Amino acid sequence: MRIAQVAPLFERVPPVTYGGTERVVAYLTDALVELGHDVTLFASGDSLTRARLVPAVPRSLRLDTTCRDTIAPQIRELELVSRTAHRFDVIHFHTGFLHLPLARHLAAPSVTTMHGRLDFCEIGPMMGDFADAPFVSISDHQRRPFPDQHWCATVYHGLPPRLLPFRPTPDRYVAFVGRISPEKRLDRAIEIARRAGLELRIAAKIDAADKEYFERDIAPLMDQPHLRYLGEIGEEEKAALLGGALALLFPIDWPEPFGMVVIEALSCGTPVLAWPHGSVPELIEPGVNGWIVDSVDAAVEALAQVDTIDRAACRAVFEKRFTAERMARDYVTVYKRLRESRHGLEARTA
Amino acid sequence: MRIAQVAPLFERVPPVTYGGTERVVAYLTDALVELGHDVTLFASGDSLTRARLVPAVPRSLRLDTTCRDTIAPQIRELELVSRTAHRFDVIHFHTGFLHLPLARHLAAPSVTTMHGRLDFCEIGPMMGDFADAPFVSISDHQRRPFPDQHWCATVYHGLPPRLLPFRPTPDRYVAFVGRISPEKRLDRAIEIARRAGLELRIAAKIDAADKEYFERDIAPLMDQPHLRYLGEIGEEEKAALLGGALALLFPIDWPEPFGMVVIEALSCGTPVLAWPHGSVPELIEPGVNGWIVDSVDAAVEALAQVDTIDRAACRAVFEKRFTAERMARDYVTVYKRLRESRHGLEARTA
Repeated sequence: MRIAQVAPLFERVPPVTYGGTERVVAYLTDALVELGHDVTLFASGDSLTRARLVPAVPRSLRLDTTCRDTIAPQIRELELVSRTAHRFDVIHFHTGFLHLPLARHLAAPSVTTMHGRLDFCEIGPMMGDFADAPFVSISDHQRRPFPDQHWCATVYHGLPPRLLPFRPTPDRYVAFVGRISPEKRLDRAIEIARRAGLELRIAAKIDAADKEYFERDIAPLMDQPHLRYLGEIGEEEKAALLGGALALLFPIDWPEPFGMVVIEALSCGTPVLAWPHGSVPELIEPGVNGWIVDSVDAAVEALAQVDTIDRAACRAVFEKRFTAERMARDYVTVYKRLRESRHGLEARTA
Repeated sequence: MRIAQVAPLFERVPPVTYGGTERVVAYLTDALVELGHDVTLFASGDSLTRARLVPAVPRSLRLDTTCRDTIAPQIRELELVSRTAHRFDVIHFHTGFLHLPLARHLAAPSVTTMHGRLDFCEIGPMMGDFADAPFVSISDHQRRPFPDQHWCATVYHGLPPRLLPFRPTPDRYVAFVGRISPEKRLDRAIEIARRAGLELRIAAKIDAADKEYFERDIAPLMDQPHLRYLGEIGEEEKAALLGGALALLFPIDWPEPFGMVVIEALSCGTPVLAWPHGSVPELIEPGVNGWIVDSVDAAVEALAQVDTIDRAACRAVFEKRFTAERMARDYVTVYKRLRESRHGLEARTA
């Protein structure tokens, strides 16, 4: 199939460091090429891809400190897509809502993956206006605020299988990976590790917006002897950190639409101890690849039985459900259905 | 004509306090209604208008503190326009670049007034993609970075003639009105007034982004005896402040695409002392309604001859060139040409 992937422009594809959406687009795009499709990637010009790259800007917006207007480059990208739409069998947007009014006028059917949370009240009226627009959710839970949209599928994110290698024997610590923000609940992870008598290794970035929270709520906890703070880490360090962990602690307090670090841990064979929010119940099968708990007591109890989880089984769950190839095959199924039912055309002639 | 006006959603139309674009849209919309046109205004639901109001959100985004996603409401507004486009003879966008890829697919011709400065480098590639899109500039100077766009006209902003009444006899002070930011050069205004031996009354807001500049560069100047700081003021206070001033000081250091406060002063009959940037040479006829200078020496010299300017002549310039009715008539000329040449249709079928 002739497939267009339309990425955000804030980070390159894949991102240098952070940037969830752009990373998923990178894995998906390369996996589609691997499956033999003719893929065009609309993204920033510094992107690295096996597909044909159409750059809307030379450099990703976050790195380009001269860029004061971030709307103009995004609008340019949409126009480049619009002009060449007839060359594609399907156009896959990862650009939030920005393209929606345009999408129904394009000369090819299109689908949009929603990458963010959808439980903000101001999104509601807009979603009602796009009741016929084909969407993909990244977890079933993400859809809940809008059960009546035209959801084509839930497609879980996937990773290249060699990115974070399986490690059968861990060291004696648990890991926390993520932003230091109130909804990630690093404070909870710190308490769990302390009560379980385990070292906690923390790989985390602190966004400017979370600085005050860090100073007030987290910094006072950080001088405990069982903690090791690694700062922000790269992919290779992440493989070492997650692979060596007895478990990943994921005690979130918000409806995270997809927990990317959960499947990163599973790729290493590391089980995940998580709170039951957002996508967690869809990613973790209790007793097989982790535990779902809702109290620190239950978390400490679960960690006491960490040996009952088979790390090879965790990796097996990853290989079955969370590889980039599986993600790409799921999307191809969506693309084929779109082309057959011609949703795009129906919408245009309605 | 059946005319759609599409306003930004950040402020209501007209704004409660600040908000340049929304204010111009308010004056234009009401003046078009006054001229007998059938006008529909797409704007926030708290807007006050004589036209038919189509609200994309109940409240303007700046006042709605629950709103975390400002793109979704703007996308909703574009979709509402898109669906009803066939009901209009012309659609007039004031929404920056956001609508451009969509505009050429609409069932009615459209035109976009550029309200901001266009000399940011990241805008360039995008403008090249929309070489056929009909634009209106708010000064000839604003167009300079893009002389080859499809400019339909320059239409200067206008005000309702009774908003800021003519005042034949001023008091003994000069005025500064605007944000306190480096490019507005309040420091220059302070020095000019001091050397001219005149009181300077300052009506200015300090944006969060300019707080540091204010503390470092302006606050140390503010305790001089010839200064009176009024803070942020409303429309009525502005009429009193500008009407009572010997002159408005407008010593800007940036290519301001249109100096709204310049025509506000002229409405009161108050001459304007300005630096030759942006739209200034198009608004001020030296010796008739103000002076254009490029040094503090020249500014002080000009103020010494302030009595040579006839305040009635300043008001006459306003009435001839800068009323809302004149603005509305100019736009109607643009709309008629668009409808006749069917630019919208040409672009769609190209």
